[in-house]
Amino acid sequence: MKCRVCKGEATIKLESYNTKLCEKHFLAFFERRVRNGIADFKMFGHEDKILIAVSGGKDSLALWDVLKNLGYNVTGYHLVINIPDSSEDALARSREFADRIGSPLIVENLSDLLDADIKNAAHLMKRPVCSVCGMVKRYRFNRLANEKGFTAVVTGHHLDDESAALLGNLLHWQEGYLARQYPALDAKPGMVKKAKPLIYVSKKEIEIYAQIKQINFASSSCPYADGATSLEYKAVVNQLEEKMPSTKIYFLKTFFKKYRQLFKDTQLEEIGELHKCPECGYLTAGPICNFCQLKAKIAGRKIRVDGMIR
Amino acid sequence: MKCRVCKGEATIKLESYNTKLCEKHFLAFFERRVRNGIADFKMFGHEDKILIAVSGGKDSLALWDVLKNLGYNVTGYHLVINIPDSSEDALARSREFADRIGSPLIVENLSDLLDADIKNAAHLMKRPVCSVCGMVKRYRFNRLANEKGFTAVVTGHHLDDESAALLGNLLHWQEGYLARQYPALDAKPGMVKKAKPLIYVSKKEIEIYAQIKQINFASSSCPYADGATSLEYKAVVNQLEEKMPSTKIYFLKTFFKKYRQLFKDTQLEEIGELHKCPECGYLTAGPICNFCQLKAKIAGRKIRVDGMIR
Repeated sequence: MKCRVCKGEATIKLESYNTKLCEKHFLAFFERRVRNGIADFKMFGHEDKILIAVSGGKDSLALWDVLKNLGYNVTGYHLVINIPDSSEDALARSREFADRIGSPLIVENLSDLLDADIKNAAHLMKRPVCSVCGMVKRYRFNRLANEKGFTAVVTGHHLDDESAALLGNLLHWQEGYLARQYPALDAKPGMVKKAKPLIYVSKKEIEIYAQIKQINFASSSCPYADGATSLEYKAVVNQLEEKMPSTKIYFLKTFFKKYRQLFKDTQLEEIGELHKCPECGYLTAGPICNFCQLKAKIAGRKIRVDGMIR
Repeated sequence: MKCRVCKGEATIKLESYNTKLCEKHFLAFFERRVRNGIADFKMFGHEDKILIAVSGGKDSLALWDVLKNLGYNVTGYHLVINIPDSSEDALARSREFADRIGSPLIVENLSDLLDADIKNAAHLMKRPVCSVCGMVKRYRFNRLANEKGFTAVVTGHHLDDESAALLGNLLHWQEGYLARQYPALDAKPGMVKKAKPLIYVSKKEIEIYAQIKQINFASSSCPYADGATSLEYKAVVNQLEEKMPSTKIYFLKTFFKKYRQLFKDTQLEEIGELHKCPECGYLTAGPICNFCQLKAKIAGRKIRVDGMIR
């Protein structure tokens, strides 16, 4: 099998692009996909101070690697969640990688922020662990970016994540989510702009990238993620991709280009304008933000109708 | 397990409705679902003379059975396609069922209509067998209904068919198909109104219905259907239904109710107004209709730009 670019020995076959590549030209292909995503959605520029959410897994480390190579000013942020058998490895891999590429890494520990572990926090909020974990991470990540003068935050969400989310949003006709699903969001007061630069690359492509670049990532999956519906959607989307290559990228790209605009962002109608949380100043739709609600619940305090905690 | 209605012994569990039913109340449930579909989409009335496309399989026989029980004026139409190991059984089961319920059945044979078998016809049209078979069936079915004074045609397409089609149309953003996907279509000049009364019942529910009513249906699947993408979509939709019961019905119903209208029927822009085929008078978008094109190809005749065959 021959590399489409250099005609040398190809070791990678990409069904979705009906192409074969050698390692060198795969890396060029991967970087180009990321560059195209950044450009198409006007995500950020070289003048931006970027904070990247680093879990220590392959997605975030590959993203960090490629952004660094593309010359962006990137700092890592890792929140230690203290999940047995997984958090230690995640932190070690994040630190190791930061050292290897010579980028700064900011580390925080959930136990310094909350007087409860993530499982108890989820129980108190009566929500799935994944949902509360995501909420806490986003909260700290966005606040810190704002406080420390970063101008953009990025995450390792990729084509599989986003096409699976799109499928789920369509199956349940989540109009507000459909209207808001976009890989680049503008800054708001108190919230820096956000982006998902891996939007055009699949999990499989990230795995190949991580392997070629010998990225030593944390591979233990979270014990709480089992049975998440997002995993169902991903499985299904990949099943269709296998039978009909390039389904995923067409589905997602065409949605962003032409059909997303058909859906109306019902958030404002449903929950009103976003405003600053009276406790912490974070943007929220409710009387107080979810993070402050959680803190109040842990402390056993009541939340008054005017949003104050007593 | 107890029947939700009569508290007697339930033998049927419907996860999608979180309910358990005895045979008697399952039949009542099934009929109600069909009645609701007919009413919601104003499909037809008891004054209509209905022609039903009968393949001899469980979907069309169950539909025929339930429409007859609901007091509609229904006649069957069966086109013998001459597919080895399958067509004979299909015709026998259709005839047997017509006798059993005392309804008339009109039978035609493809070999009387075309000088080619379905495989050669597909080859000549450079299209998949399923596509040409569907085209030929629709053509004869619609023409006959119009010529013989029927006022509505119905087919056994059900929830699985339609939710799978919707998924495929969304994955590939087939805007025109999305705009036109609807279980009831108005009459047009030369074309009677069309409907899919099984829109609210799943394949599984039809199977249970056919079993209880002891409907002897043709069960050999068509050898040409293998690998059809529609089967992939159905598999995927049912996989999600199993994990998240009632996904299918919500997905489809909500689309019809609220989101179909967002999509624009681009057919008129793309292919112009429908007009009568100069050869046979059937409605078509091209210079001549697909069926006459096929006949011309079989006869080795050329089609002129003005649509005439010489």
